[in-house]
Amino acid sequence: MDPTTLVPNNSLLTATPEEGRQLAVKMSRLIVKATQPDAQKREQLRDVYANDAGLLLAVTHTVAIEFATIAAANNYWK
Amino acid sequence: MDPTTLVPNNSLLTATPEEGRQLAVKMSRLIVKATQPDAQKREQLRDVYANDAGLLLAVTHTVAIEFATIAAANNYWK
Amino acid sequence: MDPTTLVPNNSLLTATPEEGRQLAVKMSRLIVKATQPDAQKREQLRDVYANDAGLLLAVTHTVAIEFATIAAANNYWK
Amino acid sequence: MDPTTLVPNNSLLTATPEEGRQLAVKMSRLIVKATQPDAQKREQLRDVYANDAGLLLAVTHTVAIEFATIAAANNYWK
Amino acid sequence: MDPTTLVPNNSLLTATPEEGRQLAVKMSRLIVKATQPDAQKREQLRDVYANDAGLLLAVTHTVAIEFATIAAANNYWK
Amino acid sequence: MDPTTLVPNNSLLTATPEEGRQLAVKMSRLIVKATQPDAQKREQLRDVYANDAGLLLAVTHTVAIEFATIAAANNYWK
Repeated sequence: MDPTTLVPNNSLLTATPEEGRQLAVKMSRLIVKATQPDAQKREQLRDVYANDAGLLLAVTHTVAIEFATIAAANNYWK
Repeated sequence: MDPTTLVPNNSLLTATPEEGRQLAVKMSRLIVKATQPDAQKREQLRDVYANDAGLLLAVTHTVAIEFATIAAANNYWK
Repeated sequence: MDPTTLVPNNSLLTATPEEGRQLAVKMSRLIVKATQPDAQKREQLRDVYANDAGLLLAVTHTVAIEFATIAAANNYWK
Repeated sequence: MDPTTLVPNNSLLTATPEEGRQLAVKMSRLIVKATQPDAQKREQLRDVYANDAGLLLAVTHTVAIEFATIAAANNYWK
Repeated sequence: MDPTTLVPNNSLLTATPEEGRQLAVKMSRLIVKATQPDAQKREQLRDVYANDAGLLLAVTHTVAIEFATIAAANNYWK
Repeated sequence: MDPTTLVPNNSLLTATPEEGRQLAVKMSRLIVKATQPDAQKREQLRDVYANDAGLLLAVTHTVAIEFATIAAANNYWK
């Protein structure tokens, strides 16, 4: 299996929605890392998607799905 | 972690569906901001997706997913 | 925040699945409106996606996600 | 609102998974119809997506989301 | 309605996750069949998506959504 | 049905979120394998998507959906 740690602290539980949102961003980036281990290459690719409207929207799309899972895991921090 | 605040007021709870919907739009835009911190660049990109049928639909797609999470968090404001 | 009203009647609750489905269509269009306020421009864009197989499918995709939320909000009208 | 009926029989409840699946297909096609009312145009577009690998997969994608909602509405026909 | 049977055995219930996963693959392929009834054409199209990185990922995407529904239907085989 | 085993250990239950995340990655790759059985071909395709910003995001997208199912199956490891 991939050596990359895919879930920081091995937990979906966070104190607040903000931390949950940051975890969602982090977890989606860790999948990019697991698929493309070369850090320099990833930097180049991040420059591509940070400057392309469609790819930026694809980032928001994945984060929205990851966040849905993390929010449910934390019972929406209610 | 990204300095950008990703969840306004650090809560998913809103008084009404309209506020929940506006939060969904805001949260998806904050992910664009976290990925592309340059405000001028973001303005240019927003002009791209506001005038492209496919990209406009991609915006609706992400907002729909974010809203699903926020609506569940608010028990559909029932 | 966007001046556009994003949730008609500020409620996800509808009397029937048909009304819920129409609401899903309406809510996705209101996100297009919030992103592209120019009505004439939106008319041109609607003509683009109404005549493009891929974009038509993207419309169905977003409506399906919006409807999932509205259907859950209405407990599937059971 | 669109004159097209978007939910046949104004109900998500079906006797079997097969009927539920057929409803999912039908409901996604009705959104295409509501977006492109011209039947001849739709026939041409269906020919496009029926012969394009990517578009065929986009069809499966939307049906999968619609079916998830219908299956939940019917408590998975258990 | 389409003559193609869309849900094998007219049930979402399977004995194991593996069978549930195979059902998810099968059900997504049956939507391709219902949309493109010509078997020879489908073979050609499968050759296209089996050799295209983006289309392969689109297949995984649809199967993931179908499987989510089947897994929920089977209460995750717990 | 496909000879490829699609669900390792025929279970969605894992001890930790990290294992659940690794399972999500593995299960999405097994669908690529079931669709493209030729290992050499898959290696070439992995090289394509590991170096393409859009395809990398498509990978994150599928893993996010698979993980949502696995996380729900494990009651979010609470």
